[in-house]
Amino acid sequence: MECFVLGIGGMMPMPHRRLSSVAVRTGGAVYLFDCGEGTQVPYKELHLGLRPLRVVIISHLHADHVLGLPGMLMLRAQMPDAGPLTLVGPPGLGRFVRNVRADLKMHVRYPIDVIEWSADADAVAYRDEHVQLLWQPLSHSVLCLGYRLEEHQRPGRFDPQAARELGVPSGRLFGQLQSGETVTTPDGETVRPEQVLGPARRGRHMAYATDTVVTPSMQPLLRAVDVAFVESMFLPEHAADAADKKHMTAEQAAQAACEAAVNRLVLLHISPRYENRDLKRFKETARAIHPRSEVAREGQLIEVPLPD
Amino acid sequence: MECFVLGIGGMMPMPHRRLSSVAVRTGGAVYLFDCGEGTQVPYKELHLGLRPLRVVIISHLHADHVLGLPGMLMLRAQMPDAGPLTLVGPPGLGRFVRNVRADLKMHVRYPIDVIEWSADADAVAYRDEHVQLLWQPLSHSVLCLGYRLEEHQRPGRFDPQAARELGVPSGRLFGQLQSGETVTTPDGETVRPEQVLGPARRGRHMAYATDTVVTPSMQPLLRAVDVAFVESMFLPEHAADAADKKHMTAEQAAQAACEAAVNRLVLLHISPRYENRDLKRFKETARAIHPRSEVAREGQLIEVPLPD
Repeated sequence: MECFVLGIGGMMPMPHRRLSSVAVRTGGAVYLFDCGEGTQVPYKELHLGLRPLRVVIISHLHADHVLGLPGMLMLRAQMPDAGPLTLVGPPGLGRFVRNVRADLKMHVRYPIDVIEWSADADAVAYRDEHVQLLWQPLSHSVLCLGYRLEEHQRPGRFDPQAARELGVPSGRLFGQLQSGETVTTPDGETVRPEQVLGPARRGRHMAYATDTVVTPSMQPLLRAVDVAFVESMFLPEHAADAADKKHMTAEQAAQAACEAAVNRLVLLHISPRYENRDLKRFKETARAIHPRSEVAREGQLIEVPLPD
Repeated sequence: MECFVLGIGGMMPMPHRRLSSVAVRTGGAVYLFDCGEGTQVPYKELHLGLRPLRVVIISHLHADHVLGLPGMLMLRAQMPDAGPLTLVGPPGLGRFVRNVRADLKMHVRYPIDVIEWSADADAVAYRDEHVQLLWQPLSHSVLCLGYRLEEHQRPGRFDPQAARELGVPSGRLFGQLQSGETVTTPDGETVRPEQVLGPARRGRHMAYATDTVVTPSMQPLLRAVDVAFVESMFLPEHAADAADKKHMTAEQAAQAACEAAVNRLVLLHISPRYENRDLKRFKETARAIHPRSEVAREGQLIEVPLPD
């Protein structure tokens, strides 16, 4: 799992800072979180490719998180054989896309599947052969969703010694057992994968939580993830502004991440009021609480290692 | 009159090239031509200010010319006392803005006046105390408007010798005559401004024409303007693509400008297929036909001198 940081800003695109967006690549597919005005530019810069783009996941319908979506749909329409695209987000996402497509007579010919949250929605928003995506409403001025993207479990560790003792010769049959198939040995014995594999190992987990105040629903999303992208729009001295605008400070984000036992915390959605030189203070504030904290950098690639 | 180049690209924003947009400042007001995705960023970089922004003028409803408009409206909404804004463009512009505002629940509280072209529209789209804006449909794959922005006539040259001979003492009365008022001399004589002013002098004129093939309606828009921003999406070797996509080559743009006796031709709306190193060829191609040709540069300021 690789996480690419496309932008780290909140509210509006600035000369020195793009809007918050994270692309996650795993199993050759790309899952894009949020798409504010201009997101297609770093998407191109990072050479993520249009063919792998499978799902665009929108946190909420504020302009700084969604106004780049029509341009991204157009960009993908450049591919002559673009396959279907899934959009995941709050109610109203489909209507926004439908209206812009109609009003601008956009030539987008591939199928678009829109999955909108509702009060009785399943905890799993989306699932494919690589991942499942969970969602939870956060607490913002409008309905805003936090997400958790989980790779599927991997088979347990293969024990070649155990396999040989059961009469399986090394080679093709080893591979079949490793990928979960039952095999027959040359002696005609049946060997099932659970006889030679350890317990299933979890995949990698990441979370994306912006925009919100501290709220209990963040906890299941962030719980023990390998990497969490969490908003911290303000420094602690502007905590009143944060509360007023329904955002968090770096301190609050780090506390929430600590409580959820997040492995690595990456802050984003920084207010335009802060210059780039202020970012160091975000990092220091968060590190005092959660030692593995940092501020996202535009263009940054975070490679998430496989857990043991 | 100052013309600021915000971007020079066509089709989509690129890492190395922003979408075509020109801001014209005169009399302290700003008139913005086209607003594709990301235009608010160079608008900020150029420090044009939100208070002076009076009119946003849209050529047509293709994504690369209008998808930055909602963000620009939001940006202007940051001003607590934002005055009214006028939008000028093709039919459907108002509906696009209304739908995005509603679907994203945008907090835009200032009045927005939308002026849409229609077959029986006046040749003057908009007029205020500084300028008048003329429009004409060009010839593109959808209805696309070209524009001509004209400063109002200035009073003629003041002849102080003539004024003195008519008994006007230099000082306050000179100023009143220069600004067009009738005055009474100390001897009780009435002096009218036309007695001491030469013929009215024309203001500065600029034109903005993109996207289009060569078409007769460009001629009245471009006729003898001080500066014309004209699309040239392609080099002459791609003339077939230009015709197919309803765009012009640099050669065609220069020929049209030549025919219209444009003083200074500035090319923009360059296809993403060309690298920045190719821009020299656009300039050379155009200069071979119209000697005062250039390719627009992002961030460029073109100061248009007052005509004699």
